Amino acid sequence: MSRSQWRLGVAGLGTVGAGLINLVGERPEFAPAGGVCLVTGVSARSRSASRAADVSRFTWFDDPVALAASPDNDIFVELIGGAEGPAKAAVETALRLGKPVVTANKALIATHGQALAVLAEAHGAPLLFEAAVMGGTPAVKMVREALVGDEIVAVAGILNGTCNYILSQMDSSGRSFADVLSEAQALGYAEADPTTDVGGFDAGHKITILAALAFGGAPTLETAEIDGIADIDLLDLRLAKDLGYRIKLVASAIRSPTGVSVRVHPALIALDHPLARVDGALNALFIEGRKTGRIFVQGAGAGAGPTAAAAAADIADVMAGARRPVFQLPATRLKPLATVAPGDAMGRAYVRLLVRDEPGVIASVSETLAEAGVSIDSFLQKPVEGASGVPIVLTTHVAPEATIAAAVTAMAALPTLLTPPRVIRIARI
Amino acid sequence: MSRSQWRLGVAGLGTVGAGLINLVGERPEFAPAGGVCLVTGVSARSRSASRAADVSRFTWFDDPVALAASPDNDIFVELIGGAEGPAKAAVETALRLGKPVVTANKALIATHGQALAVLAEAHGAPLLFEAAVMGGTPAVKMVREALVGDEIVAVAGILNGTCNYILSQMDSSGRSFADVLSEAQALGYAEADPTTDVGGFDAGHKITILAALAFGGAPTLETAEIDGIADIDLLDLRLAKDLGYRIKLVASAIRSPTGVSVRVHPALIALDHPLARVDGALNALFIEGRKTGRIFVQGAGAGAGPTAAAAAADIADVMAGARRPVFQLPATRLKPLATVAPGDAMGRAYVRLLVRDEPGVIASVSETLAEAGVSIDSFLQKPVEGASGVPIVLTTHVAPEATIAAAVTAMAALPTLLTPPRVIRIARI
Repeated sequence: MSRSQWRLGVAGLGTVGAGLINLVGERPEFAPAGGVCLVTGVSARSRSASRAADVSRFTWFDDPVALAASPDNDIFVELIGGAEGPAKAAVETALRLGKPVVTANKALIATHGQALAVLAEAHGAPLLFEAAVMGGTPAVKMVREALVGDEIVAVAGILNGTCNYILSQMDSSGRSFADVLSEAQALGYAEADPTTDVGGFDAGHKITILAALAFGGAPTLETAEIDGIADIDLLDLRLAKDLGYRIKLVASAIRSPTGVSVRVHPALIALDHPLARVDGALNALFIEGRKTGRIFVQGAGAGAGPTAAAAAADIADVMAGARRPVFQLPATRLKPLATVAPGDAMGRAYVRLLVRDEPGVIASVSETLAEAGVSIDSFLQKPVEGASGVPIVLTTHVAPEATIAAAVTAMAALPTLLTPPRVIRIARI
Repeated sequence: MSRSQWRLGVAGLGTVGAGLINLVGERPEFAPAGGVCLVTGVSARSRSASRAADVSRFTWFDDPVALAASPDNDIFVELIGGAEGPAKAAVETALRLGKPVVTANKALIATHGQALAVLAEAHGAPLLFEAAVMGGTPAVKMVREALVGDEIVAVAGILNGTCNYILSQMDSSGRSFADVLSEAQALGYAEADPTTDVGGFDAGHKITILAALAFGGAPTLETAEIDGIADIDLLDLRLAKDLGYRIKLVASAIRSPTGVSVRVHPALIALDHPLARVDGALNALFIEGRKTGRIFVQGAGAGAGPTAAAAAADIADVMAGARRPVFQLPATRLKPLATVAPGDAMGRAYVRLLVRDEPGVIASVSETLAEAGVSIDSFLQKPVEGASGVPIVLTTHVAPEATIAAAVTAMAALPTLLTPPRVIRIARI
């Protein structure tokens, strides 16, 4: 592929779309491979919405599918979002025509990645999605291209800036989840419907994509284990800190002899671990290779500027004309990664109980754990102002997660408990 | 380019060469673009040396130039090292034949990068050098490909693992530079002739390459300002720590309105800065983009495994067939980056004096600074066991570096000084 001019059709004109239009307008020759980039057509839900970019010069399409099909653009850029509906239809249309597609749509790739890759490869069209993971931080390129000489053992990190912002704010200001979420919504850091972020689904989409690239499988969102941060109490943030930890939403894909475990869940991270120091809306990722050891990368995980720059880097890659499979094998040969049965996983846990202040409580709790075969690493009983009852916190040594779960179930039946036990994993990354 | 088999000629059979041979032997189909890789020919100084890889299956070449010219390999991998001599002659030979070259040779690329790029582009041969900078951590790919949608403002970090190991060991064990260097040499962490590392030249090669990629210029080693760590005293590491800093060898390329300043020098880094926490032989880099903000990446900067994996990633890129200029513009259009006159730079400094313990010393030091127009940020006078005289340490506020240098020259003339003042920059990254 060598053209002097590359015409872009941009579907979706939110902050990222406007950012990309401005980037290309300011620096049409940004791609080192040479050639001039220009936007020719655009599409969005509302033609009259106020936007951070002037789109009046471009051909307007009410229907993104028509934009994707238009012969007036050479690369289709999909910034609509959503796993189904117009984003999917438009991307499929472009790929069927052999038109390169650049997208920031993590839900689409995590859900339909293999089918789209089959389409892309059958029609010789690149399908690139750097902007779908960690915004301007090149996680996809690192995993897909830079570490292919190595065998990746694990990828793990903080992939959702909204959750990290909320947890950081709760931690530093001592305000509740609900309080901080409302503020984040008012500031535009969180969506009106925050479920995708705080439920862990956004991070789940991202780690599903990274897992597929790291371990050479098809992205299979349905096998990822996803838990969010809505249940994290300020009390747990405080008690975790007393024990030398912070609580973060951690996304991980870890290879074991039997398969790959792909998970998103809140986790305690030791204060001296680099992930514990990732504050605000930053994202960070560890990539561990058998030969390379650990690479740590940290940067802005979202935002118009970084995400538009990531989409532009993909456009430059299309212009450079590399031919790689969309994932790490030809799409027709991709298989779902073997999953690891949750109970088989080994782990450590933080368990917080709220008990009535009466004699023998500690004895009954520790007996319950001993009977289940779970040994205690640290134990903290600490009166907390305003708490009804006495919080008891313990951390376990490494044990099968199923065994820890059984012990917690047994503890839940103790008569002195005022609320069900709260269990949070302790990160082992 | 689409072949089913890619034959490698590997020149240089040290630890990295042996690592690459083993990697390709274990996983000949490592490249996602498809195709089988195999080593066919090798070359090194001594045929009989004992090696970590069995090379008896491959055709032996006494002369790497003959290996580079041989039609029996499709990609030439240069792991000999050195800016001149056989490495350069062999790379030139391969490029003239239009044969792709993968190299880990930072001295060669920093010194002759533009001329080699002209040759490569004239003959349509890729020239890739990921393994030349930060071993297995993909610094080159990040700067060359992932951030092209953005305008880079600065790249700065710790690029020499040997120096970082020595400084970390001095800091943690309280031993002298000479002691720790000898130990590092015995352990194989430092070369018998350590000049390239401890003189800052290795980091100078690497930041020269990154600067060219980040700012779209020709690599021009001769305009880089390079200082090493041989003059760093244990006393300064201790006093710096008292003031809240660690001392690291920092390599940086920073854009200003008048040009790009490319430097390697020891610098004080605040204890809470991520670079202050980079210990042992690790490398770390900040890449700052106008839109993307700061990306921080950290990983193994050297070693057989990581460096061989980086060379393998370049081989996979050759197999994927992307066509990019070697640097960010066609090589015939590359110009040296405009340099910034050293005196124009603004900075802060740590100044350490060793004075006779007598009245009026502090007054005369502070008057000298005040006369030069340099204001003091912090001041520490602290008796140190075993030191002859009293160490006085001060840090300045931001001032033109030329003004600070003039003030230090004036101070050097004070009669109470026992040794010349020691000046170390305070990092502003």
